[in-house]
Amino acid sequence: MIIATPRGEIFDSSGKRNSGGESSKESSRSSTPVLAADRTERLRDKMRRRTESGDHWFSLEFFPPRTASGAVNLVSRFDRMGSGGPLFIDITWHPAGDPGSDKETSSMMIASTAVNYCGLESILHLTCCNQTKETITGYLSKAKHLGLKNIMALRGDPVGADWEEEEGGFNYATDLVKHIRCEFDDYFDICVAGYPTGHPEAESYDEDLRHLKEKVDAGADFIITQLFFRTDTFLKFVRDCRAIGITCPILPGIFPIQGYQSLKQLVKLSKLEVPEEIMQVIEPIKDNDAAIRNYGIEQTVGMCRVLLESGNVLGLHFYTLNREVATMEVLRQLGLWIEDPRRPLPWAVSAHPKRKVEDVRPIFWASRPKSYIYRTQDWDDFPNGRWGNSSSPAFGELNDYYLFYLKSKSSKDALLKMWGEELTSEQSVYEVFTSYIKAQPNCAGHKVMCLPWNDEPLAPETNLMMDKLDKVNRRGVLTINSQPTINGMPSDDPIVGWGPPGGYVFQKAYLEFFTSSENVTVLLKVLKKYEPRVNYHIVNVHGQNTTNAHDMQPNAVTWGIFPGREIVQPTVVDPVSFMYWKDEAFALWIEQWAKLYEDESPSRMIIKYIHDNYFLVNLVDNDFPLDNCLWQVIDNMFEPQMCMCLLKRSETDSMRVV
Amino acid sequence: MIIATPRGEIFDSSGKRNSGGESSKESSRSSTPVLAADRTERLRDKMRRRTESGDHWFSLEFFPPRTASGAVNLVSRFDRMGSGGPLFIDITWHPAGDPGSDKETSSMMIASTAVNYCGLESILHLTCCNQTKETITGYLSKAKHLGLKNIMALRGDPVGADWEEEEGGFNYATDLVKHIRCEFDDYFDICVAGYPTGHPEAESYDEDLRHLKEKVDAGADFIITQLFFRTDTFLKFVRDCRAIGITCPILPGIFPIQGYQSLKQLVKLSKLEVPEEIMQVIEPIKDNDAAIRNYGIEQTVGMCRVLLESGNVLGLHFYTLNREVATMEVLRQLGLWIEDPRRPLPWAVSAHPKRKVEDVRPIFWASRPKSYIYRTQDWDDFPNGRWGNSSSPAFGELNDYYLFYLKSKSSKDALLKMWGEELTSEQSVYEVFTSYIKAQPNCAGHKVMCLPWNDEPLAPETNLMMDKLDKVNRRGVLTINSQPTINGMPSDDPIVGWGPPGGYVFQKAYLEFFTSSENVTVLLKVLKKYEPRVNYHIVNVHGQNTTNAHDMQPNAVTWGIFPGREIVQPTVVDPVSFMYWKDEAFALWIEQWAKLYEDESPSRMIIKYIHDNYFLVNLVDNDFPLDNCLWQVIDNMFEPQMCMCLLKRSETDSMRVV
Repeated sequence: MIIATPRGEIFDSSGKRNSGGESSKESSRSSTPVLAADRTERLRDKMRRRTESGDHWFSLEFFPPRTASGAVNLVSRFDRMGSGGPLFIDITWHPAGDPGSDKETSSMMIASTAVNYCGLESILHLTCCNQTKETITGYLSKAKHLGLKNIMALRGDPVGADWEEEEGGFNYATDLVKHIRCEFDDYFDICVAGYPTGHPEAESYDEDLRHLKEKVDAGADFIITQLFFRTDTFLKFVRDCRAIGITCPILPGIFPIQGYQSLKQLVKLSKLEVPEEIMQVIEPIKDNDAAIRNYGIEQTVGMCRVLLESGNVLGLHFYTLNREVATMEVLRQLGLWIEDPRRPLPWAVSAHPKRKVEDVRPIFWASRPKSYIYRTQDWDDFPNGRWGNSSSPAFGELNDYYLFYLKSKSSKDALLKMWGEELTSEQSVYEVFTSYIKAQPNCAGHKVMCLPWNDEPLAPETNLMMDKLDKVNRRGVLTINSQPTINGMPSDDPIVGWGPPGGYVFQKAYLEFFTSSENVTVLLKVLKKYEPRVNYHIVNVHGQNTTNAHDMQPNAVTWGIFPGREIVQPTVVDPVSFMYWKDEAFALWIEQWAKLYEDESPSRMIIKYIHDNYFLVNLVDNDFPLDNCLWQVIDNMFEPQMCMCLLKRSETDSMRVV
Repeated sequence: MIIATPRGEIFDSSGKRNSGGESSKESSRSSTPVLAADRTERLRDKMRRRTESGDHWFSLEFFPPRTASGAVNLVSRFDRMGSGGPLFIDITWHPAGDPGSDKETSSMMIASTAVNYCGLESILHLTCCNQTKETITGYLSKAKHLGLKNIMALRGDPVGADWEEEEGGFNYATDLVKHIRCEFDDYFDICVAGYPTGHPEAESYDEDLRHLKEKVDAGADFIITQLFFRTDTFLKFVRDCRAIGITCPILPGIFPIQGYQSLKQLVKLSKLEVPEEIMQVIEPIKDNDAAIRNYGIEQTVGMCRVLLESGNVLGLHFYTLNREVATMEVLRQLGLWIEDPRRPLPWAVSAHPKRKVEDVRPIFWASRPKSYIYRTQDWDDFPNGRWGNSSSPAFGELNDYYLFYLKSKSSKDALLKMWGEELTSEQSVYEVFTSYIKAQPNCAGHKVMCLPWNDEPLAPETNLMMDKLDKVNRRGVLTINSQPTINGMPSDDPIVGWGPPGGYVFQKAYLEFFTSSENVTVLLKVLKKYEPRVNYHIVNVHGQNTTNAHDMQPNAVTWGIFPGREIVQPTVVDPVSFMYWKDEAFALWIEQWAKLYEDESPSRMIIKYIHDNYFLVNLVDNDFPLDNCLWQVIDNMFEPQMCMCLLKRSETDSMRVV
C-alpha cells in the first residue's frame, strides 16, 4: 500500500521510514492536516503518485454547452460522471463562444463550476492564436481567481487564411507555455497537445516532435494526445517522444466511436484518416446508432486493454463528446469506473484550493451543497477541525434563485406534475412529501423525484428510515433533512461510510422538519421530558426562535475516527448558521413552489400559509449509543392525552413561543 | 439545572431561551468554545453565578512558605486541596519575605504556581503601606504577566510607630483599589477586607464601615472578612453593610481552631477577643492538640451550618494556616468537599488566562503535566480543538531539573530505598518497575511510590491493566505510560470519565515503554503483522527514529462526545512533540536515577547502559472497538519461535533500524 504525505512524498506504509537524529524537530508543523492527501496535491503530483504506484486511472473531456439549460444538464453530468472517479476533467476553449466571459455557458464558468461546485480537478483549455498578451494574462488571472489550477495550452486555429507569424506574439503553443510560466511562475499545471500522427500543419512528423519537445522544455507538465485509431500509432509516438528526451507523462486521447456523423465530423476537423478495417465495419451499420455505439465500445475497450497491458500507459483520456453512456460502459468493462466511491467526507467537497482544508459544515445544507458553496464563496478561510474556529461566519445572500448551478433540473411542467397542478389543502402538501419519501407516484400518477429542499431522491442512509419518515410526514411533520444514529460503523460501509479505510463513523440522530404552530406548542411540552438528551431549535419565518442549545456552541452530529489521525467532525448543528439557513429554507416554499401557481390562486395561498405559519424545527438526539429517540418525541407529540392535557392547560398557561 | 454561557449569562436549561428576530445573526462567533464555562469566567462572575444558582462553595487561604522544600510541600498541598473543588485560593503577602521576587518562596511565585501549574483560581494579596506607586505598579504588572487575575487589596501594617498619612501616597486600602482601577482598568478582580468587629485602628465600627464602603465604591468586587467567633457578629456585619449600600458579596472568614498556641498568636495579631464560652472549653485541653482540633472542627462546622442556613452566606472562606486536616474535615462534614471531582479534561488544566482555550496536549506528558506547562509557557497560543493548528510547536528546554515545581517530593534517601541502594543488573531495574506497578514493597521491603516518569502512584484506569503491565515489565518492557481501550463509557464514570455529564468518552489503547534493542529488532518484525492497525514510534537517545505514522499528522487517542458540543480530543500522539519528549524521557534516567549513585559505580553504569542502549517505544491500537491488541504484540515479541526465526533471518537480512 502506498501512502502519500500532503507534500506529495511517497512512502511504503508496510516498511519503515527513517528520519535520523533530531531532524523531525526542524520540520515545520503542518497547520492544515487534511483527510485525503489528494485534496491538497496538485494534478501533476497526483499523476506522478498514481504512476509510481502503478494504478490505472482515467480522465474525461467535455466541451461547453450552447444554452443555459444545456449548462444545467452538463453540471448534472459532471456530478454523475464525477462519481466514477476521474483523475480530472477538462473543458475545451471555444473562441467563438465568448469562452472567458461570465456567461453560464462559457468555458471559464463551466470549468469553475466543475471545480467549485462539483469538486472535480479540472483543466481549462486556452488558445492563444490572435490574442494579445494582456487578454491572455486576463484570462489566466481570472482562472486563478476562480480556483482553476490547470491549463491546457493550445495554439488554436488561426482566424482567416492569411495568418502569419507575429513578432513577439503568440504564434505557437510554446509561446503560451512560456507566457504562463513567466507571468504565473509555477502556479498552474500545464498540459500540451501531442499528435501521434504529426500535427496536420507541421512540415513533418519529426518536425512536430521537435515542437512538442519545445513545449515540454518551456514548462509543460504532461501531454494529452490527439485521438488515434490504432494502438501502434500511439505506442510508436511514445517511443519517439522518449527517444528525443521527452520524459513527462503522455496520456492517450481515447475516442469511443458513438455515431457515424460525429465520427465523420471529427475526422474532418482533426484531419485524421479512419483506418480501412474500421470503415469496413461501420459503413454497413451507419444508420444503426445502437450498433455503431456497441461497436465503438467494443473497439475502444480492446484498444484500451492493449494500451494498459503495454505497460506504457497508466491513464486514459476520454473524448466524451459530452455523452455518458459509451464512455461509462468502456470504463466499466475496463474496471476503471469506481462503482462504490468512498466519500472523502459526508458532503460534496469543493476542489477550490482555498477550500482544501475545509472539513466541517453545518448539516442544514446537506442536500444543497452547491447553495452552501455559493453562499460561502467569499469566505477568506474555511473551518478546519472545528466549526467554532471559523473566522468568517457571514453567509452571502442567495438572491438569484436562478443561478444556473442551483436551478432545478426539472421544468416547471415537471414540477407541477410532481408537486400538484392544484393544491386543495395542507394535507395535499403532506401527500407530496410522503410520495417523495416513498419514491412512489402521487395521486396523479407522477413520481415525486425531488422537493425544493432536496434536488435528488433520498440518500441511501435516509432510506433506512423510510417507514418512520413516511408515517410522520402523513401527519404534517414535513421532513426536509434527517440522519439516523450511527454508533461506530466501519468507514467503508457502503451506505453510511466515508473517509479513509480502517476507521469508524458515528452520527447523532438528526431530524429537521416544518410543522404547524399547533404541533410546536405540544412539541415544546414533550421536549421537556427529553432534557438534556435532545437539543432543539424551533424558528418561524419571522425569526422567532426557541432553543435549549447554547447560543454559540455548535453540536457535532457526524464524526469519524481513523487510524493515525485526529478526529474529523464534518457536520455540526450550528445555532448561528441555522438562522441563515432558515431564511433559505422558508424562501424555498415561495420561490420554488408557490410561484408555480397563479397569483392569488388557492394553491399558492396554501403554500403561502405554510410559509407564514409553520415552524422550522431541528432536533438532535445526543445519546448516540442508544436507539434514536426522535421518533418517540414525534409520537408523543401526537398522543391524544398529551394534546388534551395541553389544550386544557394552555387556556390558563399561555405558551411563550416568542 | 443552571447553565452559564462563556459570557456569564445564566439561563435555565429546562426552560426556553428566546432570541427574537434576526438577532442571533448579529452575535459574533465565539472563536474559543471551551469545555467548561468556569474556565473562561472571571472570579467575580463565577461567584455571581454560584450565588444566583444558590450553590454553596468554599475558598482557602494559604501563606507563603519559608523554605524551598516548604514550597514543594505547599504545591503538593495545592494539588490535594485543589481536588476538593475550592472556588479559589488566596496567598497572603509578606512584606518581610521579598513577596514580589522570583524566589520560589515568594508570595508572587507561589500564587503563580497555584494558577499555572495547579490550575487553581487564585487571589494574590498585596499591601501598599510605605510603598511607592512605581513599586506597586511593578508588582501588578508582574502579576498580570504571570497570569494572575485577582488581587486582595490591603493597607498592611505601617512600618514603625511614627507612621503618618502621606499626601498622594498609599494611606489606605482604598488608595490601592483606586490605583489598580486607574492603572489596570478592569483587568483585575479586586477583593478587600471587612472587619465584623471593626478594624482595630478605626475610630469606631461605623467609621470602619464607611471606610469599607469607600473601598467598594473605589472598585472592589467583593469582601472577605476577618475571622470571628460568633455567627451573630458576622450576620450583623452583613446587615450593617447592606444598610449603608454595600451590595457586593461578603465572604465570612472561617478560622477552625487547630491548636492552643496558634489561636493565641492569631488573636494577638488580629487584636480579637476569644469569647469566654470558647476559652472555657479550650483552656482545660490546651495541651491536647487532637482534642483541640476536634473541638475546632465541631465548633466550626456548627458555625458554618448556622451561616449557610441563614441564607445570607453561600461561600465560606477558610483560614487554613497551611494545614489540611481540620479544614478538609469541616468541608467534608458540611458536604462541600468534592470527593469525586469530575475531571474537566484528562490532564491538569492551567488557570492562566492565556491557556483557557487549551484542550489538547500530547499524551507523553500525561504523568508530568507541570513539566509540559513549564516547557510550553512561552507559547503565544494553545491548541484548541486540533493539535495540528498549533502555531507554536517549539518546546522550551528543561534545563533545570530542580525547578521547585518539578522537584521530586521524595528525598534522595527515600528514592534510594525505593529504586535500590545498589543495582546489580538490568533485571534489578525491571524489579523496581514491577514493584511500582504492583504498589508492592521491593526486595528491600520498601514500597515504590514513584518513578522518574511518574511522580504519583498509578492512575486508577492504569490499575485496570496492572496484571498485564506487571507481566511485561518483568520481561524488560519498562512501561512509563499507558491507557486502556475505552469504547464509549459514560463521561461520569468514576475511573475513566471526564468532561461534562451526559457524554461518552473513548480511548485508543496506548503503551509507551523503554526496551532493549534486541527486543526492538523482534518487535519491528512483529509489528508488520499489525499494519495498519497499530501505529508506532521507536526512538533511541540519539534520535534514531522508526515509525509507520505520518510524520506530520497527530493521532487522537482520547476523545469525548458531549450533548450539544463539538468533539473534544484532549490527548494526541504527535510525532513532532515525541522527539522533544524523548529527550526529556531519556534524560530522566540520568538526572533522576543515575545521579543517585556515585560516579563510575556499577549502579550508575547500569542506568547509564539502559539510557544509552534502550529504545523508547510508543504503540497505539487504532481499532478501539476491538480488544486492545498491544498486549498480544508484546507477547508475540517474546514468542520463542518468532525470536528463533528472526535470529536466523537476521544473519542474511540485516534489520535497518536506523
